[in-house]
Amino acid sequence: MHMSANLTSTVNRQVWLKSRPNGIPCAEDFAIRVAAVPELAEGEFLVRNRFLSVDPAMRGWIADTSTYWPRLEAGDTMRAFAAGDVVASRHADFAEGEQVMGIFGWQDYAAVQPTQVMRKLREPDLPLSLSLGVLGLNGLTAYFGMLDVCRPQAGETVVVSTAAGAVGSAAGQIARLRGARVVGIAGGPDKVRQCLDEFGFDAAIDYKARKDLDAALHEACPNGIDAYFDNTSGAALDAVLRQINVHARIAICGTASFARWDPWNTGPRPERHLLVKRSTMRGFLTTDYAARYEEAITELVTWIRAGRLKYREDIRDGMAAAPGLIETLYEGANAGKLLIRLEPEAR
Amino acid sequence: MHMSANLTSTVNRQVWLKSRPNGIPCAEDFAIRVAAVPELAEGEFLVRNRFLSVDPAMRGWIADTSTYWPRLEAGDTMRAFAAGDVVASRHADFAEGEQVMGIFGWQDYAAVQPTQVMRKLREPDLPLSLSLGVLGLNGLTAYFGMLDVCRPQAGETVVVSTAAGAVGSAAGQIARLRGARVVGIAGGPDKVRQCLDEFGFDAAIDYKARKDLDAALHEACPNGIDAYFDNTSGAALDAVLRQINVHARIAICGTASFARWDPWNTGPRPERHLLVKRSTMRGFLTTDYAARYEEAITELVTWIRAGRLKYREDIRDGMAAAPGLIETLYEGANAGKLLIRLEPEAR
Repeated sequence: MHMSANLTSTVNRQVWLKSRPNGIPCAEDFAIRVAAVPELAEGEFLVRNRFLSVDPAMRGWIADTSTYWPRLEAGDTMRAFAAGDVVASRHADFAEGEQVMGIFGWQDYAAVQPTQVMRKLREPDLPLSLSLGVLGLNGLTAYFGMLDVCRPQAGETVVVSTAAGAVGSAAGQIARLRGARVVGIAGGPDKVRQCLDEFGFDAAIDYKARKDLDAALHEACPNGIDAYFDNTSGAALDAVLRQINVHARIAICGTASFARWDPWNTGPRPERHLLVKRSTMRGFLTTDYAARYEEAITELVTWIRAGRLKYREDIRDGMAAAPGLIETLYEGANAGKLLIRLEPEAR
Repeated sequence: MHMSANLTSTVNRQVWLKSRPNGIPCAEDFAIRVAAVPELAEGEFLVRNRFLSVDPAMRGWIADTSTYWPRLEAGDTMRAFAAGDVVASRHADFAEGEQVMGIFGWQDYAAVQPTQVMRKLREPDLPLSLSLGVLGLNGLTAYFGMLDVCRPQAGETVVVSTAAGAVGSAAGQIARLRGARVVGIAGGPDKVRQCLDEFGFDAAIDYKARKDLDAALHEACPNGIDAYFDNTSGAALDAVLRQINVHARIAICGTASFARWDPWNTGPRPERHLLVKRSTMRGFLTTDYAARYEEAITELVTWIRAGRLKYREDIRDGMAAAPGLIETLYEGANAGKLLIRLEPEAR
């Protein structure tokens, strides 16, 4: 196996799961170990990770018994999206020097098979980190959830929750690019200001300050709500349902307002609203759209290069930061897409 | 105004709403009065009702503050679907001797404008009463809810609640005509037997006998549930959600398991199921499909004439029966589409 000259370390640090929490994983649920850089089998290639991602879905990967991926077990290296360089290859389609993004885990090095790769990167003018945010799963989630599920029309009112977050900020901007009036729900005055000033939303509600969400939504959405991009579930969804228009579309993207679903969460039943307003509530998973990723990336890249799609990144340095960052994300204590940049000395 | 010779009465009995119940309307909420046969204004025509319909939607017409039609007020003649003969006309498109079905009210005679007409009947070989059931709103509701919302594919498993009812029995049979395996949920051994023997379902669950609906559904749906036609909301919906497959479709047609929605009903939140299974829950209203009624009726008529779509009618005689029949319907004490046949002496 030939290895690139820029592979300067022979150790592979890995963040691994010590025990399974029921709820939001915190720093104590993980530890960092040092393993050998993996050997490559035929058909594999070695990725040196440069950025590790922190995503809300990681809670579900650890906790849920029924989810899209196999559940992680204690002892496993934490599953995560990451972006990095191909530094050695035993696969004809992946050459040393290419950059890739995929499920490579919270570690320095991964021996990767093609099924783990989400994208090969082809935009050298744009930062690699974007491939984990607005040009990665977050941007794709916003794109397909908004355009395929919410389907905003010009002049309609669209509400987005966790509106200053990596997915919500992109989802809202995409709805505005389609001519909709966009109202964000976010936590705290800084995030409300980001929604208005950076992301160009028409209105934004601070749900922490405005305890009467019904009244706040009514003020911000005088013509009712035609579509809702829901990242939270809970009180925001319940309030939106009370103000939907006929033929409204609700995209269920995440349920971040609940730390756990065991026991199952209860609330006001939505089906009477859905019936009277002939409306749709639909859960979606971005990976179901894999065949359309490049179509979406092409449009997202065009918007970013034209300055029409803004993004924010919250980059933390060093592998040691990783274990606590899922909790940071669920606390909303990040300001934009939360990433870990691996320190140069580990490369 | 010319009146047909078969108009032999000069009085018009009307069932009117005495007071607004919060819940299922019962006989005491109505009274019967005698009014004059209405005079026709230009553009109207006179319908002598032969059959009056009893529909679950009548609860909502009376009780709800937010629904598809204006709420009924105390003193109003009860809104209802009815079918009868045009016996006089001041409208060029509706001639004496034609038969029509529409919103003509629980009364002997109605002065009708074209907007109240749902269909002009063109199947003289089939009973007039069918226009209020399998060839009326019930059949159309089953048709569009099943084919447009549930969209069953050959080999899929489809569950239907109130499966022996006028809508449920047609919905289930339509799914079978599309090649699906159909499981009904019904109350009591007679209805279960109807589902299996008359309507040809593959399995049927007596929810009154099988308190563990999860286990009963699991037995009846070993491959999970791909679509659910929901007439009830409540425990049946909750149990179905726990067993849906990826990309399941849930049509919200009615919420008959709840007598009232004030205060709002609570229950387990569905959005996590919808997310993990990338599934859809959609409310629909048959009248949104008005442009496609004749397409649907043509197919329903074909199935009925070929004996491929079975129906059951529960016909009660006389206007005096009407006030108590909404309660009868919600108690499930009817056996098939519930209708009132007006007595000959009132004609």
